Amino acid sequence: MDSNTGWREQLRIIIFQTDTVAGRRFDKALLLIILSSLFVVIIDSIESIHRDYIDLLAAIEWGFTLVFVIEYILRLYCSPKPLRYAFSFYGLVDLLAIVPGILALYYADAQYLLIIRIIRMLRIFRVLKLAPYLKQANYLLSALRGSKQKIIVFLATVSTLVVVFGALMYVIEGPEHGFTSIPKGIYWAVVTLTTVGYGDIVPRTPLGQILSALVMITGYSIIAVPTGIFTAELANVMRGEHIDHACPVCTKAQHEHEASFCSRCGNALFPKLIDNA
Amino acid sequence: MDSNTGWREQLRIIIFQTDTVAGRRFDKALLLIILSSLFVVIIDSIESIHRDYIDLLAAIEWGFTLVFVIEYILRLYCSPKPLRYAFSFYGLVDLLAIVPGILALYYADAQYLLIIRIIRMLRIFRVLKLAPYLKQANYLLSALRGSKQKIIVFLATVSTLVVVFGALMYVIEGPEHGFTSIPKGIYWAVVTLTTVGYGDIVPRTPLGQILSALVMITGYSIIAVPTGIFTAELANVMRGEHIDHACPVCTKAQHEHEASFCSRCGNALFPKLIDNA
Amino acid sequence: MDSNTGWREQLRIIIFQTDTVAGRRFDKALLLIILSSLFVVIIDSIESIHRDYIDLLAAIEWGFTLVFVIEYILRLYCSPKPLRYAFSFYGLVDLLAIVPGILALYYADAQYLLIIRIIRMLRIFRVLKLAPYLKQANYLLSALRGSKQKIIVFLATVSTLVVVFGALMYVIEGPEHGFTSIPKGIYWAVVTLTTVGYGDIVPRTPLGQILSALVMITGYSIIAVPTGIFTAELANVMRGEHIDHACPVCTKAQHEHEASFCSRCGNALFPKLIDNA
Amino acid sequence: MDSNTGWREQLRIIIFQTDTVAGRRFDKALLLIILSSLFVVIIDSIESIHRDYIDLLAAIEWGFTLVFVIEYILRLYCSPKPLRYAFSFYGLVDLLAIVPGILALYYADAQYLLIIRIIRMLRIFRVLKLAPYLKQANYLLSALRGSKQKIIVFLATVSTLVVVFGALMYVIEGPEHGFTSIPKGIYWAVVTLTTVGYGDIVPRTPLGQILSALVMITGYSIIAVPTGIFTAELANVMRGEHIDHACPVCTKAQHEHEASFCSRCGNALFPKLIDNA
Repeated sequence: MDSNTGWREQLRIIIFQTDTVAGRRFDKALLLIILSSLFVVIIDSIESIHRDYIDLLAAIEWGFTLVFVIEYILRLYCSPKPLRYAFSFYGLVDLLAIVPGILALYYADAQYLLIIRIIRMLRIFRVLKLAPYLKQANYLLSALRGSKQKIIVFLATVSTLVVVFGALMYVIEGPEHGFTSIPKGIYWAVVTLTTVGYGDIVPRTPLGQILSALVMITGYSIIAVPTGIFTAELANVMRGEHIDHACPVCTKAQHEHEASFCSRCGNALFPKLIDNA
Repeated sequence: MDSNTGWREQLRIIIFQTDTVAGRRFDKALLLIILSSLFVVIIDSIESIHRDYIDLLAAIEWGFTLVFVIEYILRLYCSPKPLRYAFSFYGLVDLLAIVPGILALYYADAQYLLIIRIIRMLRIFRVLKLAPYLKQANYLLSALRGSKQKIIVFLATVSTLVVVFGALMYVIEGPEHGFTSIPKGIYWAVVTLTTVGYGDIVPRTPLGQILSALVMITGYSIIAVPTGIFTAELANVMRGEHIDHACPVCTKAQHEHEASFCSRCGNALFPKLIDNA
Repeated sequence: MDSNTGWREQLRIIIFQTDTVAGRRFDKALLLIILSSLFVVIIDSIESIHRDYIDLLAAIEWGFTLVFVIEYILRLYCSPKPLRYAFSFYGLVDLLAIVPGILALYYADAQYLLIIRIIRMLRIFRVLKLAPYLKQANYLLSALRGSKQKIIVFLATVSTLVVVFGALMYVIEGPEHGFTSIPKGIYWAVVTLTTVGYGDIVPRTPLGQILSALVMITGYSIIAVPTGIFTAELANVMRGEHIDHACPVCTKAQHEHEASFCSRCGNALFPKLIDNA
Repeated sequence: MDSNTGWREQLRIIIFQTDTVAGRRFDKALLLIILSSLFVVIIDSIESIHRDYIDLLAAIEWGFTLVFVIEYILRLYCSPKPLRYAFSFYGLVDLLAIVPGILALYYADAQYLLIIRIIRMLRIFRVLKLAPYLKQANYLLSALRGSKQKIIVFLATVSTLVVVFGALMYVIEGPEHGFTSIPKGIYWAVVTLTTVGYGDIVPRTPLGQILSALVMITGYSIIAVPTGIFTAELANVMRGEHIDHACPVCTKAQHEHEASFCSRCGNALFPKLIDNA
């Protein structure tokens, strides 16, 4: 192992690993740079700031792009399989984060492409890996995964409701009260059912207002459904780092992770096939 | 069994059954056609599209109607009891889905009747039967059924609140601030209590704003009630509250979920197979 | 027992009792009349209907008042202790339901007093007594009672938040953006924190919008608190028609209603003081 | 112990302690004064009242300041370690509550500083200490503490969502529909995702309305997440997840809530006192 390989290996640990002090520091610094770069993009969109600091912001923007380009090259350099990294999800995101910055050097109007940079915020999830937060995120994700089917049933019902109510309101209120088409009615139904209630389109006829009241109470009540689903599922997930192995005697379904005997009936969960006593 | 009967039987399995590959494919295709037909109805309601593509949309509309007519005739043909199908819930919905399309051929103004087509979306629930989603939908439905009475008590309380608050606001704010009648006040109360908050009618007097704040906090807090009801019920349904295992000594049939000993006679519910003392 | 007393007793059972067929029918009819009378009051508040049907509505109104007067006299007549009824809660409500109707005969402007009639809707809770709904209402009420202190802590926190945020927004936005006083700011804070969001007062300055976003996310998140409180309490209430008697051996706190032995350790919950074996 | 020391000690008990009758009365009176003083500040911000009662309100304001000055001096006097009190959190808040009142005597425009007084409302939490409410507040706080990490994950996800959606809407809708910058877009995204929905900025383009509908449904659904987190955690805290009872055979220290037998060695955790076999 020559010193070059050793240096590459060390770099790889710093850049790709998150379980060493240096690796953690690198990821935290990177997150900070991403956030700063996002902050500049956001600030730049304010008309007055864009006018007054156009050169300064462009310079900073260029600086961030340079940093990300260097980072990308280093990642390619120290990765044991550069191509696999380049075509991995994070590799593509890293590339996408650079491209609009480079394009913006040639085309001043590439402003809209800068928005792609926001995808880099996804990296925040990778950085969170450093923290004990990952376990908590996993809890939430497995609760969501466990309730996926129930949530699809719920969303299907909600979709049906907004289409039906949207179409009904289009017929009842009509174009003269802002319900110019069924899609507009569906938009109104979503605004109302989710209790957002912009007030840009509101029912004007008595019948429309009665139907609206119905939609609102429906929306107000069925919010209980996803909440109930997720809560019940999360309680399940949190209760258990459990094993799912029904007790052969009393059929208790879930047991502590390290259980040898059923905590309800005291029988062995995994009876020995051949008694070696 | 002649070949005709066999063919009818096979057709029946494809159209009515959902547990064969062909049956599943048929139902999925049908769902796709229903969604497309709904999409056309929705798109057609947009003024500019309706004006520009009036002939094309009419042709597509006619095509979908034809498909549904053929499907309806096939269902009648291969059903072992055609009349029972024709007067079943789905049979009537299938018929209703055809009628406005045929009427629209003669009366151009039958536009409003097209809305009836939306009932066909109910078929989505039948198609969901194919999936393991049904079990999940059943969980949700039994949780809703179990909490039916509580939800009625809740809705009765909410109804009383909106009537009382609506009438109070009519008296306090009066017609000059948009509260032109008690029904309008009730409409406002529903908009506010459900936290939709359009802003088309808002309190202008200090007293009205104080009362509004009260209504909002009430609405914000009591959303906890349906959520709590449904969550508790769903957790119950998912856990299965009691175990049905008769006590071997006193034959008490139902026990607490985690019971190890009979709460009536104190004997072990699940005697140890091998004494490990 | 002369026939007059018997007749009075029978009348009392019909009017005051709800566990006989006649009593139930009476209460249901009464509820229907109350609802109809409320419906007339509500309808009467609509300007156009009031103008066109002024005489008809007044006559119906008078009829309802007559029915309630007769009912009130009958209640006094058949009550074993008329004075106790007259000064009971329901007795006073029954009286209050009559007075504005009588006053309206002399003063046409007694319109506002009609609103008092709405208190009669409280009778709906008495009528609900007939149904198994009472048990469910009791579940909800004991869950609310059990979480009373937590809810007060929550409401105190919310009140503090709306005062602090309201005052801050008054300072930040000022009268020129609609925040004309601290009470107005508090009203805005309630509208925003409860996610109602009328839009009649909205932040215009960047700092105000940042603070608003904070208020919204706070409001959006802390809705979880009353929901969590109520759900946990309701789950408790529903799980138990339980007895709270800690097992003397294993200290398990709650047991089935009829339990003699602890379902966890099998020991007697109530050891005999003197062994009579 | 001379009478002076005794008097100081008695004063200290009244002012700092909350477990004597006199101490409780003092704290309740103080809370009342703080609330009155806040009420005056709030009322004073109303233009018309400020104009008409400027002298009266200034006098009352001055009176409250005097009361708080005296209270502060007494606290310093009777505290065993005056400096430690002066630099404690409550000591600084007490001082801050006085300063703007004194400043307002010299500078009439010190109006904005009066807002600092609101921090005194924090004292309400100290006063709540008197009540059994503290235990309930503790339940809520430990549930919040237990779910801190999950809530941070949730807030990070929400922040990412509002930035992404805000930027997308800025690109889609543009300045001509009120989305003048990305920060404005983020403000809109917060207003929409939290279901507040002011309606001061609303999507006007079809694509913007489709994206809005997506944001609304997202916001409507993920409210389930903080609710689920908090509810599951609160249920945990209220139940007390594990029992601390060492197994008499293998000394395993913690067991599942309802365990009757040790899951490691299968022996009964709570041996029966009297064998009823």
